[in-house]
Amino acid sequence: MSQDRLDARRRQILAGARTCFARHGYEGATVRLLEQETGLSRGAIFHHFRDKDSLFLAVAEDDAAAMVETVARDGLVQVMRDLLAGATSPETAGWLGTQLEVSRRLRTDPAFASRWAARAEAIAAATRDRLARQREAGVLRDDVPVAVLAQFLELAYDGLVLQLAMGRPADHLGPVLDLVEAAVRKTP
Amino acid sequence: MSQDRLDARRRQILAGARTCFARHGYEGATVRLLEQETGLSRGAIFHHFRDKDSLFLAVAEDDAAAMVETVARDGLVQVMRDLLAGATSPETAGWLGTQLEVSRRLRTDPAFASRWAARAEAIAAATRDRLARQREAGVLRDDVPVAVLAQFLELAYDGLVLQLAMGRPADHLGPVLDLVEAAVRKTP
Repeated sequence: MSQDRLDARRRQILAGARTCFARHGYEGATVRLLEQETGLSRGAIFHHFRDKDSLFLAVAEDDAAAMVETVARDGLVQVMRDLLAGATSPETAGWLGTQLEVSRRLRTDPAFASRWAARAEAIAAATRDRLARQREAGVLRDDVPVAVLAQFLELAYDGLVLQLAMGRPADHLGPVLDLVEAAVRKTP
Repeated sequence: MSQDRLDARRRQILAGARTCFARHGYEGATVRLLEQETGLSRGAIFHHFRDKDSLFLAVAEDDAAAMVETVARDGLVQVMRDLLAGATSPETAGWLGTQLEVSRRLRTDPAFASRWAARAEAIAAATRDRLARQREAGVLRDDVPVAVLAQFLELAYDGLVLQLAMGRPADHLGPVLDLVEAAVRKTP
């Protein structure tokens, strides 16, 4: 296969695996279910990824990289607004499922937790960097350290992930995100 | 057995089961592990609770009732401060584990979700009621509906649960909760 075909195949596996992990959880995503969701044989899947654990990590890393990029460009509040806007789409369901599986494995699997620490820190660092630039631009409140504002936004993000994943009514979440954003901005 | 002994036995089972569900998750908490954690035989456990599902529901309902009581008395911000203060205690680990198991089953088990809806609504109602009283007392900001402020606090609570459960560094969480509280109060 050409490199292009290999890359396309890899993306196909990741997309199917994301859906599968979101729907069945890490433990529940059997090799048979992974075959069904990706439309590929186990041979083809594990030609690209050593085992289920490597596949899950690749899905989660993909999501973390996309998040670092959006945070650096538009900020964590925008990531939250995008999540909310797409709350009922299959992509968002996959994203939320992966995030919750990551958080569950962080809690129950110390080896995973230590491997994941660098990714979590990359997202936190992107959030802090963007806030620092906003402070220089004079739009951020300046009576609270950037590290505290960054963790406040991450707390709101984690809360949003959990609420959307639980299917809680989302009626007020738009105005709630306005409150979150106003809490880190300079009052005019 | 006397009613007192029966009640004490029931509490003993709930305490052990809470630890067990927190440590191993709902699926991972086998009957054998439940026997180990409670120090009782399966016969004794299932004399009090019909099955594992009823036992889990009883643990979660206990936690929800405690939360409604604290929210009504001290508010959701105080619940968060208590959680943070006891972040490393075994009781808090049990609480966080139960909360996350509830949120996982809400996502993956529609029958559980419909049975749980009334409990979630009781906590939300206690939060709204307390905020309404605070608004009457003039300490709450009055430019945002109580329903929005309530969901903002619930978002922060869910975020805190997820962050503590993931073992994220808690250094800034005290000042973060100050920000959360300030965001719902009237600015002096």
